[in-house]
Amino acid sequence: MNGMEQDHYYMQMAIEEAEKAAAKGEVPIGAVIVHQGEVIARAHNLRETSQNAVTHAELLAIQEACQKLGNWRLEDTNLYVTLEPCPMCAGAILQSRIPRVIYGARDSKAGCVDSLYRLLNDERFNHQCEVTENVLADECGGLLTKFFRAIRETKKKKKRLL
Amino acid sequence: MNGMEQDHYYMQMAIEEAEKAAAKGEVPIGAVIVHQGEVIARAHNLRETSQNAVTHAELLAIQEACQKLGNWRLEDTNLYVTLEPCPMCAGAILQSRIPRVIYGARDSKAGCVDSLYRLLNDERFNHQCEVTENVLADECGGLLTKFFRAIRETKKKKKRLL
Repeated sequence: MNGMEQDHYYMQMAIEEAEKAAAKGEVPIGAVIVHQGEVIARAHNLRETSQNAVTHAELLAIQEACQKLGNWRLEDTNLYVTLEPCPMCAGAILQSRIPRVIYGARDSKAGCVDSLYRLLNDERFNHQCEVTENVLADECGGLLTKFFRAIRETKKKKKRLL
Repeated sequence: MNGMEQDHYYMQMAIEEAEKAAAKGEVPIGAVIVHQGEVIARAHNLRETSQNAVTHAELLAIQEACQKLGNWRLEDTNLYVTLEPCPMCAGAILQSRIPRVIYGARDSKAGCVDSLYRLLNDERFNHQCEVTENVLADECGGLLTKFFRAIRETKKKKKRLL
């Protein structure tokens, strides 16, 4: 596989994680961490299930990867995530020194990699990342659109029944 | 106790947490979360011990508080932390909807509440916090200065022995 094929391959895996979240009624976001060609972590958003504010896909994947490598420094890793990271997850990427981040769709409301801030490329921090955006963005964003549309329709139906 | 006395009281508790971190060889940072007058979480930085990049004092305290309240929304809580939060922890504060944050010393290198960014007061996000800084700042900052000075002195001694 060349670089772009690899990015599509692992993003497809992150999309599968996002689909698992949707099946649980969670906002569909998925993440995968690859270390030297091996998948060492895959996770999906679990905020409602866990009732824990920090259980975003990226945070869970980063913790799993640290455990696998026995190191808080995730050197030689790539993080794939279906949606542009929020400030917490962008910060966790800096904290864990992940060298490269690949994401699908932009998040115009809370994205801190390109949309509202560029936290992963601020030279005042002690780490910066290589960033690739727009990988299978339509599929990644489509999952979210479909999820929120279904929620709105359920709410409308409930209103009609009242 | 009036408001300022309360802030000093809980910050002193956060300082005790920071001292526990120092005793383990961890960068001394501590955090406490108070819910309606009751301490529901206290934690200190455990990055080296856990080898998990996200185990900052605030992240650990937020997770403990979510578990205690059975809710990812930490309404009616105050978070006390000895050092200005980094981007990850500031983001986690937004994610958990903590209404008020009180911190000790500024972090000119990575602080994202006042120093490099003002993430807790950006109206584009769906949550903003009331922030009080400079509470027992000398004690909070002093712990860090002492910790890093000791590390430098140990390194110097090692060099002399080589």
